[in-house]
Amino acid sequence: MYEVEAKVPADLAAVRERLVALEATPEGAVVQVDTYYDAPHRAFVETDEALRIRSERPEDGEAETHITYKGPLVDDESKTREEVETAVADGEKVDAILTNLGFEPAATVRKERERFSLEGYTVTLDSVADVGDYVEVETELESEAELEAAREGAYDVLERLGLDPDEQLRTSYLGLLLES
Amino acid sequence: MYEVEAKVPADLAAVRERLVALEATPEGAVVQVDTYYDAPHRAFVETDEALRIRSERPEDGEAETHITYKGPLVDDESKTREEVETAVADGEKVDAILTNLGFEPAATVRKERERFSLEGYTVTLDSVADVGDYVEVETELESEAELEAAREGAYDVLERLGLDPDEQLRTSYLGLLLES
Repeated sequence: MYEVEAKVPADLAAVRERLVALEATPEGAVVQVDTYYDAPHRAFVETDEALRIRSERPEDGEAETHITYKGPLVDDESKTREEVETAVADGEKVDAILTNLGFEPAATVRKERERFSLEGYTVTLDSVADVGDYVEVETELESEAELEAAREGAYDVLERLGLDPDEQLRTSYLGLLLES
Repeated sequence: MYEVEAKVPADLAAVRERLVALEATPEGAVVQVDTYYDAPHRAFVETDEALRIRSERPEDGEAETHITYKGPLVDDESKTREEVETAVADGEKVDAILTNLGFEPAATVRKERERFSLEGYTVTLDSVADVGDYVEVETELESEAELEAAREGAYDVLERLGLDPDEQLRTSYLGLLLES
């Protein structure tokens, strides 16, 4: 599974208005708390990998927890990387397993996310604690061959939302938090 | 959570008869496939730890997968060690996360297990591929203080099943498989 993702700083209220005008489908809001780990045997900042436990609580439901591995960039321009993710029953136990193995929680990113779907893309309005407000446009692909077309499509969606693809940030929220 | 566990080689048919005579409660049978991993940064055989993905399929149900970390021995005589375990949605994805991080599948143990409960203990009749037939008596504890009494109780259960606690094997099925 590959992911194309483009993210720009945004006025969330203005983008929300455009989404309504474009008749995008609201997909609900969640609070996400992401804990990123350092590895005992690799500097993820150098290998360009990440290991994350994500707890996600919908407005009206139970929190769910996933563990995610992100591999190094495949395509630098669109920030495409391989992701492997699965749900886990108990995030605290996964944390205990990781810390017993020598992994250490390095940083925690908290954000409120409001999602819409628009023509095969997910548009997410993010309010990130201690970082700021951003809009992400993303889609998932089965193969690397579809990358170019998917990236062009994501830029087109950004433009229709009144946003400039050239303002795209390559830095992750984790990176922005660590820089702040 | 602590675990007391005692395991002896056994004639499973004979032990099954004794369990019926003692009115032990049958708890069903499962097929377990355990994959143990080597770590990229530690020799688990030296640190006396283990990292395992277990897929368990009941006679009449869906397979469930758990990830388990086992810490070093706390009590050598009864093989007591700390365990941290949680269910995961997709064992193949956990395998992919681990192998991406540099962990490697080291060995796979396959066994049929038939469980009974008897006076607070779980009695398990194990038929282990390429290893042999064994009976395990185990129970879980909240604190280290209960260890001694729990171990004596486990030995008493073994004796009532016609088994000799002195024949106890300290070696795990993984160890027995690797020795075979």
